[in-house]
Amino acid sequence: MKVISPQEVAQHNKKAVSARHDTLEDLWIVLHGKVYNLTEFLSEHPGGQKIILKYAGMDATKAFDPIHPPDIIERYLSPEVCVGQIDQALVASQPKVETEEEKRVRLAHEAKPRLDEMYNTFDFETVAKNVLSPVAWAYYSSGADDEITMRENHNAFHRIWLKPRVLVNVKEVDVSTTMLGTKVDMPLYITATALAKLGHPDGEVVLTQAAAKHNIVQMIPTLASCSFDDIVDAALATQSQWLQLYVNADRQVSQKFVEHAEKRGIKGLFITVDAPQLGRREKDMRQKYDQEAPDEIERNKTEVNRNEGAARAISQFIDPSLCWDDIAWFRTITKMPILIKGVQTAEDAVLAAKAGCQGVVLSNHGGRQLDFAPSAIEILAEVMDALRAECLLDNGFEVYVDGGIRRGSDIFKAIALGATGVGIGRPALYAMSSYGVDGVDHLLTLYKNELEMVMRLMGARTLKDITRSMVDIRNIKDHFVANPTDYLAHHAYDQMLPRGKLSKL
Amino acid sequence: MKVISPQEVAQHNKKAVSARHDTLEDLWIVLHGKVYNLTEFLSEHPGGQKIILKYAGMDATKAFDPIHPPDIIERYLSPEVCVGQIDQALVASQPKVETEEEKRVRLAHEAKPRLDEMYNTFDFETVAKNVLSPVAWAYYSSGADDEITMRENHNAFHRIWLKPRVLVNVKEVDVSTTMLGTKVDMPLYITATALAKLGHPDGEVVLTQAAAKHNIVQMIPTLASCSFDDIVDAALATQSQWLQLYVNADRQVSQKFVEHAEKRGIKGLFITVDAPQLGRREKDMRQKYDQEAPDEIERNKTEVNRNEGAARAISQFIDPSLCWDDIAWFRTITKMPILIKGVQTAEDAVLAAKAGCQGVVLSNHGGRQLDFAPSAIEILAEVMDALRAECLLDNGFEVYVDGGIRRGSDIFKAIALGATGVGIGRPALYAMSSYGVDGVDHLLTLYKNELEMVMRLMGARTLKDITRSMVDIRNIKDHFVANPTDYLAHHAYDQMLPRGKLSKL
Amino acid sequence: MKVISPQEVAQHNKKAVSARHDTLEDLWIVLHGKVYNLTEFLSEHPGGQKIILKYAGMDATKAFDPIHPPDIIERYLSPEVCVGQIDQALVASQPKVETEEEKRVRLAHEAKPRLDEMYNTFDFETVAKNVLSPVAWAYYSSGADDEITMRENHNAFHRIWLKPRVLVNVKEVDVSTTMLGTKVDMPLYITATALAKLGHPDGEVVLTQAAAKHNIVQMIPTLASCSFDDIVDAALATQSQWLQLYVNADRQVSQKFVEHAEKRGIKGLFITVDAPQLGRREKDMRQKYDQEAPDEIERNKTEVNRNEGAARAISQFIDPSLCWDDIAWFRTITKMPILIKGVQTAEDAVLAAKAGCQGVVLSNHGGRQLDFAPSAIEILAEVMDALRAECLLDNGFEVYVDGGIRRGSDIFKAIALGATGVGIGRPALYAMSSYGVDGVDHLLTLYKNELEMVMRLMGARTLKDITRSMVDIRNIKDHFVANPTDYLAHHAYDQMLPRGKLSKL
Amino acid sequence: MKVISPQEVAQHNKKAVSARHDTLEDLWIVLHGKVYNLTEFLSEHPGGQKIILKYAGMDATKAFDPIHPPDIIERYLSPEVCVGQIDQALVASQPKVETEEEKRVRLAHEAKPRLDEMYNTFDFETVAKNVLSPVAWAYYSSGADDEITMRENHNAFHRIWLKPRVLVNVKEVDVSTTMLGTKVDMPLYITATALAKLGHPDGEVVLTQAAAKHNIVQMIPTLASCSFDDIVDAALATQSQWLQLYVNADRQVSQKFVEHAEKRGIKGLFITVDAPQLGRREKDMRQKYDQEAPDEIERNKTEVNRNEGAARAISQFIDPSLCWDDIAWFRTITKMPILIKGVQTAEDAVLAAKAGCQGVVLSNHGGRQLDFAPSAIEILAEVMDALRAECLLDNGFEVYVDGGIRRGSDIFKAIALGATGVGIGRPALYAMSSYGVDGVDHLLTLYKNELEMVMRLMGARTLKDITRSMVDIRNIKDHFVANPTDYLAHHAYDQMLPRGKLSKL
Repeated sequence: MKVISPQEVAQHNKKAVSARHDTLEDLWIVLHGKVYNLTEFLSEHPGGQKIILKYAGMDATKAFDPIHPPDIIERYLSPEVCVGQIDQALVASQPKVETEEEKRVRLAHEAKPRLDEMYNTFDFETVAKNVLSPVAWAYYSSGADDEITMRENHNAFHRIWLKPRVLVNVKEVDVSTTMLGTKVDMPLYITATALAKLGHPDGEVVLTQAAAKHNIVQMIPTLASCSFDDIVDAALATQSQWLQLYVNADRQVSQKFVEHAEKRGIKGLFITVDAPQLGRREKDMRQKYDQEAPDEIERNKTEVNRNEGAARAISQFIDPSLCWDDIAWFRTITKMPILIKGVQTAEDAVLAAKAGCQGVVLSNHGGRQLDFAPSAIEILAEVMDALRAECLLDNGFEVYVDGGIRRGSDIFKAIALGATGVGIGRPALYAMSSYGVDGVDHLLTLYKNELEMVMRLMGARTLKDITRSMVDIRNIKDHFVANPTDYLAHHAYDQMLPRGKLSKL
Repeated sequence: MKVISPQEVAQHNKKAVSARHDTLEDLWIVLHGKVYNLTEFLSEHPGGQKIILKYAGMDATKAFDPIHPPDIIERYLSPEVCVGQIDQALVASQPKVETEEEKRVRLAHEAKPRLDEMYNTFDFETVAKNVLSPVAWAYYSSGADDEITMRENHNAFHRIWLKPRVLVNVKEVDVSTTMLGTKVDMPLYITATALAKLGHPDGEVVLTQAAAKHNIVQMIPTLASCSFDDIVDAALATQSQWLQLYVNADRQVSQKFVEHAEKRGIKGLFITVDAPQLGRREKDMRQKYDQEAPDEIERNKTEVNRNEGAARAISQFIDPSLCWDDIAWFRTITKMPILIKGVQTAEDAVLAAKAGCQGVVLSNHGGRQLDFAPSAIEILAEVMDALRAECLLDNGFEVYVDGGIRRGSDIFKAIALGATGVGIGRPALYAMSSYGVDGVDHLLTLYKNELEMVMRLMGARTLKDITRSMVDIRNIKDHFVANPTDYLAHHAYDQMLPRGKLSKL
Repeated sequence: MKVISPQEVAQHNKKAVSARHDTLEDLWIVLHGKVYNLTEFLSEHPGGQKIILKYAGMDATKAFDPIHPPDIIERYLSPEVCVGQIDQALVASQPKVETEEEKRVRLAHEAKPRLDEMYNTFDFETVAKNVLSPVAWAYYSSGADDEITMRENHNAFHRIWLKPRVLVNVKEVDVSTTMLGTKVDMPLYITATALAKLGHPDGEVVLTQAAAKHNIVQMIPTLASCSFDDIVDAALATQSQWLQLYVNADRQVSQKFVEHAEKRGIKGLFITVDAPQLGRREKDMRQKYDQEAPDEIERNKTEVNRNEGAARAISQFIDPSLCWDDIAWFRTITKMPILIKGVQTAEDAVLAAKAGCQGVVLSNHGGRQLDFAPSAIEILAEVMDALRAECLLDNGFEVYVDGGIRRGSDIFKAIALGATGVGIGRPALYAMSSYGVDGVDHLLTLYKNELEMVMRLMGARTLKDITRSMVDIRNIKDHFVANPTDYLAHHAYDQMLPRGKLSKL
Repeated sequence: MKVISPQEVAQHNKKAVSARHDTLEDLWIVLHGKVYNLTEFLSEHPGGQKIILKYAGMDATKAFDPIHPPDIIERYLSPEVCVGQIDQALVASQPKVETEEEKRVRLAHEAKPRLDEMYNTFDFETVAKNVLSPVAWAYYSSGADDEITMRENHNAFHRIWLKPRVLVNVKEVDVSTTMLGTKVDMPLYITATALAKLGHPDGEVVLTQAAAKHNIVQMIPTLASCSFDDIVDAALATQSQWLQLYVNADRQVSQKFVEHAEKRGIKGLFITVDAPQLGRREKDMRQKYDQEAPDEIERNKTEVNRNEGAARAISQFIDPSLCWDDIAWFRTITKMPILIKGVQTAEDAVLAAKAGCQGVVLSNHGGRQLDFAPSAIEILAEVMDALRAECLLDNGFEVYVDGGIRRGSDIFKAIALGATGVGIGRPALYAMSSYGVDGVDHLLTLYKNELEMVMRLMGARTLKDITRSMVDIRNIKDHFVANPTDYLAHHAYDQMLPRGKLSKL
């Protein structure tokens, strides 16, 4: 392969348009040491032209990696766009220049608290906000529409109160359990979340390593930023992994993926059903907008909506026609247990069991899809009742929940209401982004310690001792919206202040 | 007609009172190029003398237009008050001087975000607040009394949660429907709101054009700032329009108006019944007060309440004696479908159906009339139940709701509870004021996109698939008022802060 | 009577104690032009010595007037303490010096908004806070303990929503009614509140004059700062007044007062029963403390609690042994209708009716006595039900409510639930303190206008048309206390902001 | 005993480690005038080495006293570690140097309000925050996890409203009662709280003296910072004390303690059952962390978690295997009444009664153990019902509650729901820390005055007159969690402001 100097690449940065006003004359970009001529591809890029133009004549690897699968170029572009490889010696000899953003992130990492000062998931979230790039923060933290459901996911646990029993010998408590046949050290798994490299250069592999330390299951996402095989390779021989699947409009692509996963030893197939279309995540949309807003476009003049374009592109890949018939088909192509991820009603949980699935994940996709969808924990009790009423729990049908698990007591509440285990998503990403493997390890230790503590204080020695009678779910389904504030009265009122406290005005 | 120079007009600005101390000697004003002698009329102006005095000897067109029907002078004043026409050539030769307020508005328009940054109705509302004049903002945004009902209108939707079904083929979703026989592209119409020229120089015609782009219905207001015919003329031949009617104490005036509307092809007559008296809109009252407060009046000395006067004037025009008998009469003078706008109980919806109406609009007038009136969405389910119980839905009786529709999910909830469609008012005004036709177009696109998205994520392909079982209305009728805050405890408590976040004091 | 110069009075200001260390040698004070020797009385003053010492050798009329009945000196001190009268000519010749506090109040009055800018009761409250002395503000505005009940009084109305009927001819609405046989222009009276001179130099007479303008009833307080006869004399011949009575431990004092009132034409006797002991009003206690905190007392050394002393003094006057037997006795000494003021349960309302009373006032004393006492409006419906169940409403038994009436809709709600009328207290004091008679007049006009408007918008022509079916009291008895805030989650969350709005940090 | 000069002690401060890198060469410390060689002990200190190293060569008495039992050295270290006594004359001759923290605390004490300005428990809490060291404040004020239960403890009282009866002769009210056979002046005792010397140099004895003044019971904590005998010795002969017991894994230690307590005249044994493991108190953990965080440890490098170590040490002492069988055993070793402290369900209260206990304390340990445990007051009514249903109240079984008692009305509510009395913890600590014995005396006076006032205003003369019908507990079990805030709407809305109030932006 031809070796090309950075200087030569830098010359292929022409943004001038041709006489026909629709193609660039000349645009090269470096990715992972290879030089690509993207002149023709530019107008077809699903993510828009701006971002490519920004790196014309430069190395775009850092921006490319977190949001593209590693093999995407090979799959989508013809071999001849690769015009050579960069001269690594020359690159190495050039002085590194730190960008403003790189500097901000470096300083944020230096200023962050010590890991053993992290006492809860909210600490990790807060540190993550400081150390992440705005793009990553917006992508990870955003939810659908007004983010009501995203916040409700944790809030709903606050509607569940505990009924602690005393004078039970709790010298030894045991939080281990079994999930889809795998013995695990606690009833918690790391669920599938996209684009881990936005938060950490090593991506999903960080989560694999932390899961290994705690002997818990990791669910591998379809939209990982590491390749599937890299993530499987990173696991210990004894470690169980599951696969989260977005079903492709081209079923053959999905079939190949599922068969490969089964061959690699994946222990469960979780088919995501809550995303026939991507939800509106306005923080994320705004962030993308701010990133790309070009100077040369006149203010207040509408142009083709790039966000929509990107959403539509993904919608085409994730098949909105997916239906129950497809589940029957999946049972013909794999022996892995099949679970439906994204069930949000008792009716659909019953359908899943009747369709021969081994379980469901009650989930609203972390509040990222449909605002005002209920939280998993709110519907868990009625889901269990419906399954029990139809005798569908007898063959080991398992019910998982994710969304809003932030404390050991949240896990306890889920178990009490019938869950086999719970999945965590954002907390793992935040811990990973802030402190890498050690961070996720510490986070998992916190969850485990808190769960053990709650069990001791509740008088439960094992997960089997945790029963529905230990939780008060009287208000679990109540959604209280306060009357609008009476601002005239509020502002006219003279607040009481305790002696010794200075007035706020 | 005599041509008069601006300089001559300027001399007729005398504010000195006559020997009898009750008339001005000499006061001319220019409106739409014509010069009027208002010396005699001054004391009869329903809006008070101040505002006329402010423009004595000047061109008052900009202040006049948004708050008067275009033909009002011809209708109310004798022809001889018109003393000539202004010399346009001389006017054109004079340098334009931008007022402080005009400058503020111009700068606000220049600084506003690009249209494609607008992701939701609240963005439009926020931009509108910046670009509108204080008078327009106060008029559009204000509600009755403490604005509890105004805000409740949207809040009530938050008490309705969704029950999404999965694994339904939603590749194609269709949001089109039929309203009063008109096929429309989505179940949403632009409802009648007064005085569009306060927000945009072209007034209601802007809304007509945007409605055309989306093939939806526009309801024309009685209190439009464009003339009725101008608004009808602006519509496409294929476009449906409805008429909102304030019934005049002089029934002949109303009859003439209705007959004319029917002749012009209006497809539905919506009689407003929730405004026998104007509600108290204190923000609006205060704004008017601040505008007019004269220096020469001593502080703290009560005078005749001008606001009351204005309200009474309108009350005289809108007939507070309107009752069910009148509805029967209206059926004799028009073949247009008659709908009652402003129904707020199941009892009155039943009466409307029994009175031979083709439908009702459940509405509290955007929270501008009676504070603590319920939101339309709160009573929708019981209204449908009452109509169904008396078999009044069989002949195509249609139920619309307006008030607080801010998200696609709000439309979904209304449809699920039985509405044929929903009306939007303020959001359209805010989009119009901020970005004109393009703004309203974009707003309607957002509503449509969001509704389609919600339908996909709910597992509904068409509006007929949307059923009441898809929404959880357990708390829909609950109005929660929190206990007064325990401020001593609140201020004594030491809030927890996540690590990495700076304390707020 | 001997005429004494200010200079001579000024010399009798000795604060030195006698050899026995318990009396002052020499202390004179001027009140209403008379000079008193209070040397002996000093140690017996129920309000403590400090305040008298502050005015030693000076004119104390301004401080004395608002908090003492006008005839108290004649009643409590022997005639010889009056040593003469001040030389008015000499006083007049002295230059007036404005104190800092007098200056602040004068400037606040000059800066206050014009009266016709006052649109609601909260405006008056806010202006009153500015123009009142801290002592007066603390006394008027304070409530018991944490002021939960005080605020609940208005909040409770927010739990009542309206069910407006449309297409009713409401051209004429009539808010007049009859209270204890008196025809009044609206169902509202000015209730008894103590110490009006704290807010206005003319005291309760201001309220008398305003009540006359609106043809409504005024209830005269036992603890008025004007004398009872002055208040009665200020009334028009056609004007009805009621008497609020604190029953004295010495029943003869009460008997004399009641007989005198009946002779003067008082139309109703309202016996207060909710104050066997004064409630804790901490804002008021603190204010008194700050006023009096002497320099010479060492910090942090407890002394006899003066507040307690004052409270006990009043407790001795207001008889805590008052019971149902006393009511029977009152019926023997007067023919005036007797009503029990301060009833807070249905049980006691029934007892009052059975005891031969003509009515009750449901009241918690403006939230000044017992925190967590229910609001009158909350219990009104059950009170009416209990009375109706025992057929106790047939003989014209009347039920009034006070507490938290701030809007015309509040009056409407009370009427709908069965009240004959409502009393207002603080709003009248605030209007009086800010703008005198004109202020109270304007306030009453606001109440009346709002009530008429609400009736029109509700479809009710007269008070008799207002029925319980017009209000939704589903949540009237619910006291919602929100879960404690999850501050870690709250502070970790990144709030959404509409485009065009600047972030708050 | 050898007399040693401060200078000599100061030389034994070597922090250099030995050749084996695991012991210090030479470390002396002064405690209560004695000099100890802690070179060998250092690595065994349960509280970590840092804090000892901080005082190497110095007098550590002030830091040692609040967190260690007085006899701990004698019990744990061999006699030879004591190498002599400090030369007191030399110490006395040295100039005292005030540390920064000592100065801050001294100034805070000087600036605090006078005691008679303290009107409620929140005032004391606020002053305490100012005058306490950060360590003491964190220890006293912290609660479990998110401190939801800690705050709920008081909030729950806000869900209980009162139903006051009027016209009852309440001239004399009597709040005295009997607890476990002891006649007390009010139904309130000072409950056991650890480490009083953190707040006041005299420790628990301060509480003993204040209890004596009011003739109420004090419960002595196992983890007192004064010795048990010192606290008993400080009591009057007529004074009753109870003992709170953490049961030791070594039952003989507990037996010796219980037998000794019985001999000393203790009137009741309260066995704590809600602490098989210490709860997570993150404020306290963070405070400890901040105190000890050493410079020399690299940032972000995890080390052995000292907090966990400390918690585990205490967990070993408090036996997590404690169960109902042990209660039977305790009945064999003492004749004192045995009560179970920390019961949180009706089921366990019934078990306690059946196990022969004389009562229970419904308690969640001040919200310091298990977040989302219910408040005592919430479950009190159902506990009483369950006991009554099984006829377990007939033999004088007594039910106490603690947690969140901040007002006299809180005591009233507890009595109304069936409690024999209530315990207060933090309020007593805050009053003690701020103003010593006088502070606690004043606090108890406030509680008593408030309770008497509430009884008068409720129409109850004695505790027996207080019945469940006097309280409204309709919402007592409701835990309302408001919907997440709709921030876009919230920020777009233009708040109403009363006239005369300046806008907040």
